Order: sequence, then C-alpha cells, then structure tokens
Amino acid sequence: MRLVQFRRRGAEGSARVGVESANGVVDLKAFDQTVPSTMREFLELGEKGIECAQRAMSSGKCVLPHTDIQLLAPVTGPGKVVCVGMNYRDHCLEQNAPIPTEPIIFSKFPSSIAGPYDDIHLPNESQEVDWEVELAFVIGKKGKHVKEEDALGHVAGFTVANDVSARDWQMRNGKQWLLGKTFDTFCPLGPALVTTEALKDVHNLGIRCLVNGDVVQDSNTSQLIFKTEKVVAWVSQFVTLYPGDVFLTGTPPGVGVFRKPPIFLKTGDVVECQIEGIGSIRNTVV
Amino acid sequence: MRLVQFRRRGAEGSARVGVESANGVVDLKAFDQTVPSTMREFLELGEKGIECAQRAMSSGKCVLPHTDIQLLAPVTGPGKVVCVGMNYRDHCLEQNAPIPTEPIIFSKFPSSIAGPYDDIHLPNESQEVDWEVELAFVIGKKGKHVKEEDALGHVAGFTVANDVSARDWQMRNGKQWLLGKTFDTFCPLGPALVTTEALKDVHNLGIRCLVNGDVVQDSNTSQLIFKTEKVVAWVSQFVTLYPGDVFLTGTPPGVGVFRKPPIFLKTGDVVECQIEGIGSIRNTVV
Repeated sequence: MRLVQFRRRGAEGSARVGVESANGVVDLKAFDQTVPSTMREFLELGEKGIECAQRAMSSGKCVLPHTDIQLLAPVTGPGKVVCVGMNYRDHCLEQNAPIPTEPIIFSKFPSSIAGPYDDIHLPNESQEVDWEVELAFVIGKKGKHVKEEDALGHVAGFTVANDVSARDWQMRNGKQWLLGKTFDTFCPLGPALVTTEALKDVHNLGIRCLVNGDVVQDSNTSQLIFKTEKVVAWVSQFVTLYPGDVFLTGTPPGVGVFRKPPIFLKTGDVVECQIEGIGSIRNTVV
Repeated sequence: MRLVQFRRRGAEGSARVGVESANGVVDLKAFDQTVPSTMREFLELGEKGIECAQRAMSSGKCVLPHTDIQLLAPVTGPGKVVCVGMNYRDHCLEQNAPIPTEPIIFSKFPSSIAGPYDDIHLPNESQEVDWEVELAFVIGKKGKHVKEEDALGHVAGFTVANDVSARDWQMRNGKQWLLGKTFDTFCPLGPALVTTEALKDVHNLGIRCLVNGDVVQDSNTSQLIFKTEKVVAWVSQFVTLYPGDVFLTGTPPGVGVFRKPPIFLKTGDVVECQIEGIGSIRNTVV
C-alpha cells in the first residue's frame, strides 16, 4: 500500500490520511469517520489502521482524483527526525572520510519537513545550500532495544527524502550539524509512505537526484553501510521509538559541496529526488 | 502564574493542565471543559488560555490538593527541545574551551523528557552519565526571525531542567552530541512553567545542582553568555518557533566529567536541580 497525507484543494489546514488507488486517493476519514486526521495518529492504530485502509481500498469508495488534492509530506509533526550521516561508502570516499564503524546519528527538527512538491526556501543566512537524496523510513510500532531481526516489524514503510543541507552552517555551530540541516523546508518528504511489505527488497533500489534535469546523484540503496535493520536496532539502544518517527538513512555520492568547484542551489533550481519503486519528489528552490 | 501538567493519582495516562494556587493545583479542564489536555495545546491558545487560567485561579474552584496529583513535566511532546552548549563563561573555562562568539545549538529528542520527580534511567550503554542544571524556557507564540527586543513576548515562561549527559557518547558518534544527550529520561523538567511576567529578572537567579545533598553546581543566571532574548533571536533565524518548543540554556561549572578525578552518576544517587524563584526538581538515578 501507498499511504499519503493530503489536503483537499480549497480546504485549508485540514490534513487527511489516504491510500493511493488506481483512480486517485482514497480518503480514509470519508470511508470511516473514526480514522484520525494525521499519519502519526493513524500509525498509532497499528494493524487496525492498516486493515481499515485495505477495506477502504477494496470498497472502491471515497476516491478523490489527484486533481482535487494536494499531497502533503506523508508524515508531519513526528516526535523525531533521526538522520544517519556518512552511510554510503562512496559518499565517505568523495570527502576522504573514514568509513564509519558504527552509525553516526544527527537530527533535524520536525519543523523542517516539507511536502513532496513544496518549495525549498533558500535562507538569507546561508550561501551553501546543497541537496542530498535519501531513503527514509517511518516507525510503525513503539520499541526500545529492538533486535535487528525484529526491526522491520517496527517499520511502517519507506519514502523519499531530501536532506537539504546548508554546508556553511553544518561546519559552524561548534561542528554540530543540526543548524545547517534544519532550516524550515529543509526536509521534503514523499510522495507516499510505501508500506514495508509492498517493497521486495528496500536495499536494492536505484536512488537518484536531479538538479534542473541533470543527474547529480545516481546510486543504489545496496550501497548503504548500515541498513534499515541495523539503524533501527542502533538508535533504539538510546531512545524509545514511536509510531511516526522519521529516519533518513544517508546520502550517496554526488552532493554539490564536494564537486570541483563546489555547486550550491540557487533560486529557481528544481531538485528531483527519486527512488525506484517508491517515487519521486520535486521541489523548486525559491 | 505557575502552570503545570499533572495526572490525578489513579488516573493513568490522562494529562491535565493546571495552575498552582495556595491550596493545591487548579484543574483547568475541570473549570472549563474546552481547555485542552496538554500544555502544548494550551499554549497554542495564547492569551485566551492565560486569561482562562487567571479566571480559574480567581474562582477558587476545582482545586486539587498536591497529595491527589502527580506532577508531570510542564511540557511533554514539544516540537523541539533546543539546547545551548557552552553558555556559562566559567563552564567554558573549566574545560579550557574558548568562550563562544555565537550560541552553539544542539538538541535532545522530546522522548527524553521526564517529570520533575521521575527517575533517571542509567543506560547500560553508558558508564559516564553526568548532571547539568539548566534554566529552560518554553515558547508561547509562533515566530520566525524574531528580534531580540520582541523575544520575551514569544516566551511563555521558564522552568528548571537537568540536561543529563552521557559523556562517553557525547564524544563518540562523529562528535555529534545528540546521542549522548538524548537517552530516555535524560531531560527532567519542572516543577512548573513560571510565566514570564511572574519573574522580575530571569537573568539574575541563583542556580544550583546537588547530588546526594552535596552542592556540585552553584552559580547565577547572570553568568549566561547568551541570554534568553539572544537565544530566541538566534535560533529563529533558522527555524520557526512554535508554542511548546522547549529551550535549555546551558549549564554552569561543576559538572562531573571535569572533576579530578571525574565523577559520574550511579544507581541510587539523588540529583536535585534548583533555580531561585522557579523551583526544584529531584530525580533518583535507577
């Protein structure tokens, strides 16, 4: 299943949870008034929510054509946005950094999340805003000290992220990456949360980033150093994971900062992040 | 006013917003059914919420004695927990670190928040868990690019925090402090959110930490390098601030890691963090 958050055009402010069907998006709250309005709350329902979405899809009812809706990020307002740094071997090599022996974890604030087709706002405070296509996943079941073999059972599904990064600030701020990573709109997500069982092998998918149509990153999730199971197990040593928590798993080579000369995003650029079998997000820099 | 979150003893799971009175805590939802159940939502009401709390206090109604309630952290589930590092001059000196010329910002996940008298869980994963008493504040009004002169108008109030820190992990993880700062229960907060107008000068308050009754930190908020107004203005350059966002402003000297020899928390220790005019939180290490 491909779960989404959307808003009906003309209905400001009210998010809805939906599931993609052949003809559009099934409005789950229209199908069943008890379905909550946000993905985070929907995921808290666990199996019950998923079953409801399946019934809604089968019913053929409550389908809204794509022209009537605006897709939002599939999750908004999560408890955490957890990010893994240096998690593609080639991305370490392009910056002459050692291959990490354990995951390097940092974070973005949830306020940085933007929709799959929303604008990325270039802040006046940075001159070095860069792209980073990433495979993201979303927690579906609470857990602490999760074992690797149980980890996928805690993952509701996968989506595409752009871990937009202000390189100047990433290396300022006492070398804490947070500020450079967390400007408003620096975390476009979407277009859908593809449920775990719907992907045959999430660690063998093409992953690409295009800027103004030119391919700038082109790799495969098979190149991930620490895969989903390891990342879930690792982070859950430290913190309890809750439904809705978003994880960004790291970016492959090809970012702007390590090009010679470096290239950064400018007003009017269009950044497209694609992952095979999941989809594509497309954000204009303004 | 001193705003709190509490739970009636025996009523698992349901948080309430209250305000301290002479005889106990006024249950705002009992006074007015339309008052939301969490401080974050209450703060989203803005002035309307504050006025309701004032009416409730004046009424003398709906007062619960302290024996009937358990105080929770005054805010739970905020969008952000923003922390300032190296923000007391003497704390920089004790570690031979330069005085920062701009605030150093890092974060904890909201899942690390604990109540004012809750236990601090010593994780098996760390051997170097340390204390850090801090002045915390909570955002009451949404803002971006807030000017220093307007900043206090965005602050709902102040509370006491313990920025519990696993020093081994703070220096591991690619030197990103996040993991060492964000184990579950590593952010005790409370006992109350003291509204901004109720404090004459928040930057001239005694601030102390005691471990098993021994004073280990003893300073004054006048020693803060970057004060509340500056921190609000600085961080709001990067991110939109929302009601409920929690800020920890940094710790004075006297932490365990810089003692000779270093001292760390162990099972059974009782850590008390006090700020003059705000109150005291007391957490047992288990």
